[in-house]
Amino acid sequence: MNIRYGVIGTGALGGFYGGMLARAGRDVHFLLRSDYEYVRENGLRIDSVRGDFQLPTVNAYADARAMPQCDVILVCLKTTENGGLPDMLRPLLRPGSVTLLLQNGLGVEEDLASRLPQAEIAGGLAFICSQKKGPGHIGHLDYGMLDIGSYNVKSTVVLDRIVNDFRAAEVPAELSEDLRFARWRKLVWNVPFNGLTVVMNTTTDRLVSHDSTRRLVREIMLEVIHGANRCGVDLKESLAQKMIDATREMIPYAPSMKLDYDNRRPMEIEFIYSRPVETAARAGFDMPRVAMLEKQLYFAAG
Amino acid sequence: MNIRYGVIGTGALGGFYGGMLARAGRDVHFLLRSDYEYVRENGLRIDSVRGDFQLPTVNAYADARAMPQCDVILVCLKTTENGGLPDMLRPLLRPGSVTLLLQNGLGVEEDLASRLPQAEIAGGLAFICSQKKGPGHIGHLDYGMLDIGSYNVKSTVVLDRIVNDFRAAEVPAELSEDLRFARWRKLVWNVPFNGLTVVMNTTTDRLVSHDSTRRLVREIMLEVIHGANRCGVDLKESLAQKMIDATREMIPYAPSMKLDYDNRRPMEIEFIYSRPVETAARAGFDMPRVAMLEKQLYFAAG
Repeated sequence: MNIRYGVIGTGALGGFYGGMLARAGRDVHFLLRSDYEYVRENGLRIDSVRGDFQLPTVNAYADARAMPQCDVILVCLKTTENGGLPDMLRPLLRPGSVTLLLQNGLGVEEDLASRLPQAEIAGGLAFICSQKKGPGHIGHLDYGMLDIGSYNVKSTVVLDRIVNDFRAAEVPAELSEDLRFARWRKLVWNVPFNGLTVVMNTTTDRLVSHDSTRRLVREIMLEVIHGANRCGVDLKESLAQKMIDATREMIPYAPSMKLDYDNRRPMEIEFIYSRPVETAARAGFDMPRVAMLEKQLYFAAG
Repeated sequence: MNIRYGVIGTGALGGFYGGMLARAGRDVHFLLRSDYEYVRENGLRIDSVRGDFQLPTVNAYADARAMPQCDVILVCLKTTENGGLPDMLRPLLRPGSVTLLLQNGLGVEEDLASRLPQAEIAGGLAFICSQKKGPGHIGHLDYGMLDIGSYNVKSTVVLDRIVNDFRAAEVPAELSEDLRFARWRKLVWNVPFNGLTVVMNTTTDRLVSHDSTRRLVREIMLEVIHGANRCGVDLKESLAQKMIDATREMIPYAPSMKLDYDNRRPMEIEFIYSRPVETAARAGFDMPRVAMLEKQLYFAAG
């Protein structure tokens, strides 16, 4: 029996991953907002470094209440929109449905679990450069790896099937045994580069090529690693240098928070900065640099 | 016998303080660079909130070697120009001369003493809003208080006479018993407001009216206060709130580092940031927020 997928938030992320699954013949249902009319008429178009493709017809919806119940719901909203998430999810859920939060930061699963106690929740981290180019039109620039882990899913068999579906759709995917590890690991990169590209109005390559900011990036990474350690997550200090070296090999890159800032969209400060700071503080660990970046970002947000 | 004053660096600071002394009849000799020709012909003009005045004729020099030896040399250069200071000072010094460094930050006296071991050195902190408006033309916007203290002056009688000369010239001046206390105290304000106005591209009023940056300013101030404490300087934590409250009462204000940055001049990062961080570190105290601001500023400087 095939999995029926729902996609909440059909933007750069949801459009790409949902589109890849649909191209591979999976049963995918897309919830849209501003692009609904356009996508209902024209489908989705994905310009990918791995090969462009179009889906002339997709299952498009403007209202979650018009959607069928789904086995797996991919939540691809920005975390700044999570306030409306339970209302969007409820019509799609039946017993056994898994909600997969493809979102950045820390605490998104805990938040949803407290608001929808019956939900079975998994989390996923997307390592991807993609952007929306127009209505129903996604640009996929690089990468695409998905790292998926259970938060409170009763049977992880469904997670294995999701991973297999993504792999069959040519999306590299892994099942992570420790979702907290995966989330903290991604924070090690996200915290310095998202925040500093906004505050210093620059790109990743300039941050790692300038001596003073490369040292600062490293100090912030070590602070996140030590915060994770104090929370029982076994990240190694050597990860900092590895990520800096990898970033030096990347093309000049504006992280999602910089794109949000430049386009005057809300930034995901709460889940990428405030929650990690609070979580580490509860474990007795102070993260002054991360907390300073958080405050600079709230000021930049106005 | 009157004190003969030399002024090295006749800009917003040196032009104002030297001009006030000259107006009061003191013997003042000004070293100039780009404004030399203009000032030799036209003298100095000071537009002050306390009353405008002109000095049609002043003792102006383009080269320190043409100047007479002086009893007191007021150094009013930016610290970014201190590399050339010993060469400018040598022709002006005779035994007993006092060099008064009216400069911001920490470590300027130590630096000069290591390069001119025979020099008698004092330091001073200027609490003033002034700016250069044109050749030989200074605008004095507010305040003007001078806080002066000995670094290695053999007889402090001369410092008392300097204070009296300034007071007679209508410049409020005080003799500080502890120059380190005075320098650290001013850093409590200078460190957060100079750096954050540059990095966040804003003014003091916006930093203290926005919740997140007001909290950040306070945290940075407390870090400086605790650094001072560890260095044996008895600053109270309550100073942070007093300075924030005072800043809320000020008119919107761009500190000197912000003016330097906006006008693409070098910023005084070394003596306002690096030296305090190093000094506290030698006393076993870490200042992560100040060190982060330092690195952001070096990146902003290019």
